[in-house]
Amino acid sequence: MAQQHLDPTDPTAGPAPALGSARVGGPPTGEALAGYLRAQATEFLRALRLHRETAPAAGNGTENPVDAARALRRSVRRISGSLHTFRPLLETDWSEGLRPELAWLSGTLSMEHAYAARLERLLLALHRLSGAAVFPAQSAATAPASPTGGPATTAATTDRGNLTVGAAKAGALLERQLTLARTRAHSTALQALGSSRFHAVADKVAVLASEVPLTPGAATTDLCVLAAAAEDRLTDAVTALPLVTAGSPYNAEALIHGLSPDPAPHPQDAPWHQVRLLLRLHRYARETLHGTDGPIDVRLLTAGQALDRHRDASEAAAAAASAARTPRIAPATAYSLGVLHADQRHEVEAARFAFQQCWQKQAVSTP
Amino acid sequence: MAQQHLDPTDPTAGPAPALGSARVGGPPTGEALAGYLRAQATEFLRALRLHRETAPAAGNGTENPVDAARALRRSVRRISGSLHTFRPLLETDWSEGLRPELAWLSGTLSMEHAYAARLERLLLALHRLSGAAVFPAQSAATAPASPTGGPATTAATTDRGNLTVGAAKAGALLERQLTLARTRAHSTALQALGSSRFHAVADKVAVLASEVPLTPGAATTDLCVLAAAAEDRLTDAVTALPLVTAGSPYNAEALIHGLSPDPAPHPQDAPWHQVRLLLRLHRYARETLHGTDGPIDVRLLTAGQALDRHRDASEAAAAAASAARTPRIAPATAYSLGVLHADQRHEVEAARFAFQQCWQKQAVSTP
Repeated sequence: MAQQHLDPTDPTAGPAPALGSARVGGPPTGEALAGYLRAQATEFLRALRLHRETAPAAGNGTENPVDAARALRRSVRRISGSLHTFRPLLETDWSEGLRPELAWLSGTLSMEHAYAARLERLLLALHRLSGAAVFPAQSAATAPASPTGGPATTAATTDRGNLTVGAAKAGALLERQLTLARTRAHSTALQALGSSRFHAVADKVAVLASEVPLTPGAATTDLCVLAAAAEDRLTDAVTALPLVTAGSPYNAEALIHGLSPDPAPHPQDAPWHQVRLLLRLHRYARETLHGTDGPIDVRLLTAGQALDRHRDASEAAAAAASAARTPRIAPATAYSLGVLHADQRHEVEAARFAFQQCWQKQAVSTP
Repeated sequence: MAQQHLDPTDPTAGPAPALGSARVGGPPTGEALAGYLRAQATEFLRALRLHRETAPAAGNGTENPVDAARALRRSVRRISGSLHTFRPLLETDWSEGLRPELAWLSGTLSMEHAYAARLERLLLALHRLSGAAVFPAQSAATAPASPTGGPATTAATTDRGNLTVGAAKAGALLERQLTLARTRAHSTALQALGSSRFHAVADKVAVLASEVPLTPGAATTDLCVLAAAAEDRLTDAVTALPLVTAGSPYNAEALIHGLSPDPAPHPQDAPWHQVRLLLRLHRYARETLHGTDGPIDVRLLTAGQALDRHRDASEAAAAAASAARTPRIAPATAYSLGVLHADQRHEVEAARFAFQQCWQKQAVSTP
């Protein structure tokens, strides 16, 4: 039974229903939601199969397991988001049972990529700060894990010729710490994918690919109302952001607690992270309504990218600060980590500015 | 004879001639230049007298010797600038002999203030980065030197309650190093003011207060041509600045060599420093033409302030980097100095942005 989800090519599953088909002759209802969820569940099963086929243990190295893992995370986020936004249309017990499991899976699967991307961001920044040109042949974030299960070494990490001793040592320290974290995340993800907990989730998603547990009233419920509520939550959260400050370049807000004795010195980032999540939910709700082939809102995409950059820089800055607390490091290493931390907090501020600029445009152009 | 310059109230010197008087009935000529130089020389003598009267050794502590020193530097810069811009109107031997002496004097007199201002800037930044509110009762830059000759302690330096250990230690290290430098600069300035070299300069300036050595053709030479040449030099230098980059917020250029192994990592600052000097010469040339009571060009003033901020932040960043090279400091101290360095380089970038914004406005509004 646990193998049921391994065959997305099962002819009985049929092709994913055309999205947005429920719009013909009226507003999108539960049927559009069911179509979207079935398509995402099918995507999940396809990605899972690809992931198993391309895993190093399978001896088939032609495809990239990183792409499969990304596709898996992508569909999990969309299913999870739809369950949240369109909760009233779905059977409560089923959706309330599945949501925490999807959150667990999404979190577990994203960590390896997050550590790899963080390391690459920090090493590129170290090179930029050293005035050295870097052209990584292959980025750490997209490089496949090496056959031993550990992440591959990137070009950015091997060229230390133009770095000062402090910058090189800081780079080596970050590489050590984040590679260790990445390797652990890799093992954790592998373990998770082999666990009975995962098999239970996969079974549920496999069922979802053919049968969506809608409530009796779902067929006549207008999705637009729930999608609008998701957009309102986003708009409200954006309104609460300090956008006037963010729109004033070089406001120096992001670094203001950079040397605070507070162990969690950047509570100022939290509302931005929250907007990032709400923006994503809004985007998925739009996909549910208009289909994944619907019009792409470039500004929404740009705003999302600015918030991703905000999150990445915020976490990279924290990683640099955390590395600086390693006992017995040389002062030159600590100095470089301080410069790096401030540089990434500067990036946080830049991302907020970029979001503000893009959001203002959106507000103006919306009729 | 060396005492001649000590009596600016000498009735034979008469009041400073009205500036711009040469403009009546034609363009400003050598007479306007002579009037400006006489006025600035008189200012110099007045400031020198005030400085001697208010020096701690004189036992008269009611006036501020810092104000006197500032007035002295102010007049020296203006005389020196005029000698440069209007060189063809002045006796060559005399002006070529005086200019390097004025440069020496200006440099010597400015160091104490520069170290004090740098320390204050860095301590305020440390407090800002620690998220602590600072309201210095009296700024380090304007506080009089203590009776023992050392600089007074500021409020900003005494409140370390909200600083981390690293930030507090970094602050203490900077305070120690920059206070030592300030005290040395104070002694050097005192020695300079008592030297025969200074008395020779002061004698020349005293003569200038009544008699300006113009060339025979100066009376009919139009100052505007030379002032325009000074403005052209400024405009050319501004054109060579990377203003497009500077006008793009968060371009991250200023920190790009922040961890460079190069011992002089910021050659990118030099053209901005040069523009700062040329802007000052342009401003003094305008004063010569229109008088010190003439219309104030607010944009020119704002641009100058942005460039002062650029210079101050650049030097503060260098001081933080230099302090981080102190042997045997704790990693936490070095980390704080790294954050501080990056923060000040961020300020450098912000100052360039401010200059660009202000300069663009100027270009648009000039007919």
